[in-house]
Amino acid sequence: MTVWSEVENDASYSKYLDHGFVGLVDRMGDDAAIVQAARVSYGKGTKSVSEDRGLIRYLVRHFHTTPLEMVEFKFHLKMPIFVMRQHVRHRMASINEYSGRYSVMTDEFYIPEPSRLQAQSSINKQGSGAPLEGQELEMAFNTISRVSAENYLDYLSLINDPSGRSYNLGDREGLARELARMVLPVNNYTELYWKIDLKNLFHYLKLRADSHAQQEIQMLANLMAQHVKTHCPVAWEAFEDYWQHSISVSRIEHNLLQDIIALSNNTNATFSESYVRMIDTAGDRKALQQKYGMSKRELDEFETLWRLN
Amino acid sequence: MTVWSEVENDASYSKYLDHGFVGLVDRMGDDAAIVQAARVSYGKGTKSVSEDRGLIRYLVRHFHTTPLEMVEFKFHLKMPIFVMRQHVRHRMASINEYSGRYSVMTDEFYIPEPSRLQAQSSINKQGSGAPLEGQELEMAFNTISRVSAENYLDYLSLINDPSGRSYNLGDREGLARELARMVLPVNNYTELYWKIDLKNLFHYLKLRADSHAQQEIQMLANLMAQHVKTHCPVAWEAFEDYWQHSISVSRIEHNLLQDIIALSNNTNATFSESYVRMIDTAGDRKALQQKYGMSKRELDEFETLWRLN
Amino acid sequence: MTVWSEVENDASYSKYLDHGFVGLVDRMGDDAAIVQAARVSYGKGTKSVSEDRGLIRYLVRHFHTTPLEMVEFKFHLKMPIFVMRQHVRHRMASINEYSGRYSVMTDEFYIPEPSRLQAQSSINKQGSGAPLEGQELEMAFNTISRVSAENYLDYLSLINDPSGRSYNLGDREGLARELARMVLPVNNYTELYWKIDLKNLFHYLKLRADSHAQQEIQMLANLMAQHVKTHCPVAWEAFEDYWQHSISVSRIEHNLLQDIIALSNNTNATFSESYVRMIDTAGDRKALQQKYGMSKRELDEFETLWRLN
Amino acid sequence: MTVWSEVENDASYSKYLDHGFVGLVDRMGDDAAIVQAARVSYGKGTKSVSEDRGLIRYLVRHFHTTPLEMVEFKFHLKMPIFVMRQHVRHRMASINEYSGRYSVMTDEFYIPEPSRLQAQSSINKQGSGAPLEGQELEMAFNTISRVSAENYLDYLSLINDPSGRSYNLGDREGLARELARMVLPVNNYTELYWKIDLKNLFHYLKLRADSHAQQEIQMLANLMAQHVKTHCPVAWEAFEDYWQHSISVSRIEHNLLQDIIALSNNTNATFSESYVRMIDTAGDRKALQQKYGMSKRELDEFETLWRLN
Repeated sequence: MTVWSEVENDASYSKYLDHGFVGLVDRMGDDAAIVQAARVSYGKGTKSVSEDRGLIRYLVRHFHTTPLEMVEFKFHLKMPIFVMRQHVRHRMASINEYSGRYSVMTDEFYIPEPSRLQAQSSINKQGSGAPLEGQELEMAFNTISRVSAENYLDYLSLINDPSGRSYNLGDREGLARELARMVLPVNNYTELYWKIDLKNLFHYLKLRADSHAQQEIQMLANLMAQHVKTHCPVAWEAFEDYWQHSISVSRIEHNLLQDIIALSNNTNATFSESYVRMIDTAGDRKALQQKYGMSKRELDEFETLWRLN
Repeated sequence: MTVWSEVENDASYSKYLDHGFVGLVDRMGDDAAIVQAARVSYGKGTKSVSEDRGLIRYLVRHFHTTPLEMVEFKFHLKMPIFVMRQHVRHRMASINEYSGRYSVMTDEFYIPEPSRLQAQSSINKQGSGAPLEGQELEMAFNTISRVSAENYLDYLSLINDPSGRSYNLGDREGLARELARMVLPVNNYTELYWKIDLKNLFHYLKLRADSHAQQEIQMLANLMAQHVKTHCPVAWEAFEDYWQHSISVSRIEHNLLQDIIALSNNTNATFSESYVRMIDTAGDRKALQQKYGMSKRELDEFETLWRLN
Repeated sequence: MTVWSEVENDASYSKYLDHGFVGLVDRMGDDAAIVQAARVSYGKGTKSVSEDRGLIRYLVRHFHTTPLEMVEFKFHLKMPIFVMRQHVRHRMASINEYSGRYSVMTDEFYIPEPSRLQAQSSINKQGSGAPLEGQELEMAFNTISRVSAENYLDYLSLINDPSGRSYNLGDREGLARELARMVLPVNNYTELYWKIDLKNLFHYLKLRADSHAQQEIQMLANLMAQHVKTHCPVAWEAFEDYWQHSISVSRIEHNLLQDIIALSNNTNATFSESYVRMIDTAGDRKALQQKYGMSKRELDEFETLWRLN
Repeated sequence: MTVWSEVENDASYSKYLDHGFVGLVDRMGDDAAIVQAARVSYGKGTKSVSEDRGLIRYLVRHFHTTPLEMVEFKFHLKMPIFVMRQHVRHRMASINEYSGRYSVMTDEFYIPEPSRLQAQSSINKQGSGAPLEGQELEMAFNTISRVSAENYLDYLSLINDPSGRSYNLGDREGLARELARMVLPVNNYTELYWKIDLKNLFHYLKLRADSHAQQEIQMLANLMAQHVKTHCPVAWEAFEDYWQHSISVSRIEHNLLQDIIALSNNTNATFSESYVRMIDTAGDRKALQQKYGMSKRELDEFETLWRLN
């Protein structure tokens, strides 16, 4: 497996977590390739820089995403297996990964920084909450460190590697690698080449750089995003404005927003006052919620988004 | 090719345009299949009807779309070739289509209703505008009808079909079908089986039932949508609320909206008054546009959406 | 639409049919990229040129095709619509195509060379047979030429282009382009950018450069193949040896072949004599066919392939 | 996570390894659906049972695989994570998997049968060889069992589960599940719904039921294959004959085979004698190999396949 020290002097590589990395090893196309592909549909016309920028922003804003497929990024990545298990779910990408059947897995395990050892979130069933402290933090850190080290020794023993615990098995082959690896925990590192087009990479970044994604894959996504920003600056900015940080307003929320605005305009009230009146008219908050067909959670989020609470 | 009269008594078929149809010939899964797949991730817990509904709406609202892939629809479709050319661009679907190399194309061409013979839109470069009238309408209708009929006769002549124009070629084979078909215009009908999962069908319907799509494919999309509505009523309603009729509010528009709302709340002004003040403060409309980094078109659309003009 | 004269001085473009072209406009990776991706699975070791060649041949021979996905080709193509209808069926590719809704279709139609005007094959239901001759040839050529020219005039009239037939419609818009195009036959040209990875391109070439494909798409495939040969010479040669010109020998054929060989070796007979004896032993050809579970067609093809008839 | 005892009375479920299972939970289409889709291309004609069988065999034999896409299988699967890591690489399928971020992983680990504890193969770099014996077997079995049990206790401790080792941490939340799972080895079980069409399932089975695949995924593939055999018997038999157990004969091997056959027929020699003469004529085995452009390995395999050694 490639180790960080082999690539750290290569400017296209960044360190990721304790043993991993993100390297951009090849690329096809940039902002100009997007424009070229789009113009085959939309016709020729003038092509000044400002118009190219406008065209790219138009495409992204209206989710006309096929021209984005003309740009490809090929990364060399090293990440823990549990991150890889999320990463591989993005099917519109090409992968060649290190094989634990063919090669010996290496002694590299992700041990989180103490500040990352966070308690289970009490709000988000799949998220992390406050950092652990004191004895609890110490136990967690020690457990992960100890398990990683001990399991690797067990792995070496199974494949009868001389560095493993001694079982006096002489020069025999040891257990097949494809079986011995079963004792390695999912914080063990793996390595891969990963190729994806810009449309699918934007889709990936929307989901995986999001605050609901596991923090480790957010970090991976953000390191890859830097390369997009460098090589496709106009598309990247459009992505941020119209896709990554856009919000989806449902038909229900749209109706409610428009009703509040109309009431504000028609009754000479502020936006907040109008909302309060709408609750009063409906009877109470729950009645308003039912009138619009919203769940309690939707109305809560609506109020937070539009600062009504 | 299957003709409408062969399937019109089958309740799962609907007529489409003048010679086409949409038939649902098989299906796997429904709302319950979506819930089943989602629960394997989210755990078990109680499963009352109302909770299933809430779960499906939650999934669609947050674009957790993989459980929607567990539902499949298989359609039998007949449509003009120019519609097929748009239809086939949806890659995540399976197709078996009538072959003009293997079989003789039939004398079925789409002749639009006179009310559909609309002028080129002066606003939308790829759309239709006002209906043609008088002599212009007559010419258009007659031209399309005549070309369809005459080209078909030419096609028959080329394949030396006895119904074609007589060229006294006796019983010879005639030009290969794969070549003779070259004279058929793209309003000629084709037929296919088309299978797609619900996630990708929703994506299709979002794009093709949209008012910017060509009217003929909108009609096709809406006929297929009826089957989704029948068999997955909860997912369909969630799709309408959170996906089909949702609007994407960009980071830029979100900032502007929040600023207007804040100004309304802080200065005791209505929503509209606040917007006018923001223009005044910036200098003029163009200055406001530049301050927020919007194109003129974006600000126009913003004002229309939030009734500010 | 881009015309041939605009690109003919560009060495990366080749002419295709009468108005079309194949241009390679971008590319990512080559033989070395395949090796790089494969080695991440198979480990490091020495990397001399001859070993790289052996590795690529090994990968292709055993259909370990994921490393081939690391190479991308982006083509600029112009082809008749009926060829595009076959081309687009390859779903694992990216397309941006000229839009007949947005832009005016041009007066470019594929008129085959007289030698290509072949009769329907009497053997192959979807193929072409002997070239037409005399009056039949003349009629076919004239029909295709006339229909193309006349339909284009009808198209111009519909969109109220001054070059169309005069209908005295003044300066009105004319029928919407998205509708007017319906009178254009499928030998009209379209233009596109097309991006595909090498694995999927090999799959395309296997099917479309095959003698059973329509001749026009074979020509397109072969022009693209030239670029693969230039940029990935080792992978190309491996493709030819192990994939494009390999034959698939079924379990049934394999058994029969082995039985003939065993009989030859055991009874001191030639290969052909052994086959004849096997027919005699079975009773007749049909009995042999049934004994091995072959269709008549399979046994016919078997005899042709192994020169037994 | 669903445990085997919950589903063992359901006839559509089979046990897989020690804690896993394969259940067929839904299906769309069968042999008739393949025929229906194919006939839309090939025309109507008579449809007796024998002809349907012939059509399906024809399709599979010529790799006209699109009609196979019309059949869908949906499985409920439970397998170790290291098998899942191979399984997920098949991208043309839909997955909903148990989430270790959302739910607690269960105390189920794959402990291979002693007979499966095989040494590293000395021939196949990614395979298993002879079974371990004696002390070595005991060590391997004990190590895998011990690591599985101890790591699970560490996992419980990390999430502060009362069944874990006591750390006197009271009723606090414990480490987030998304982090705690990092100590679980890849023989821990996961569960998923998996939906795939028949074309892609055949592709999967070709690769994963193959003797070069890891034995654990071969077993998974074979259990799924039983369901295909039951529901699509004609397609299954065609798959076995023409796809799964077919051999790919390269252009090189084809040439050599034909030359041996011609020499046998022309010189009144047996098949084996002819091969020996060809070696003599070339000089030696290596010269023959070079004459045909084969690697040593290819000629070795050729001789084994056609019983020439």
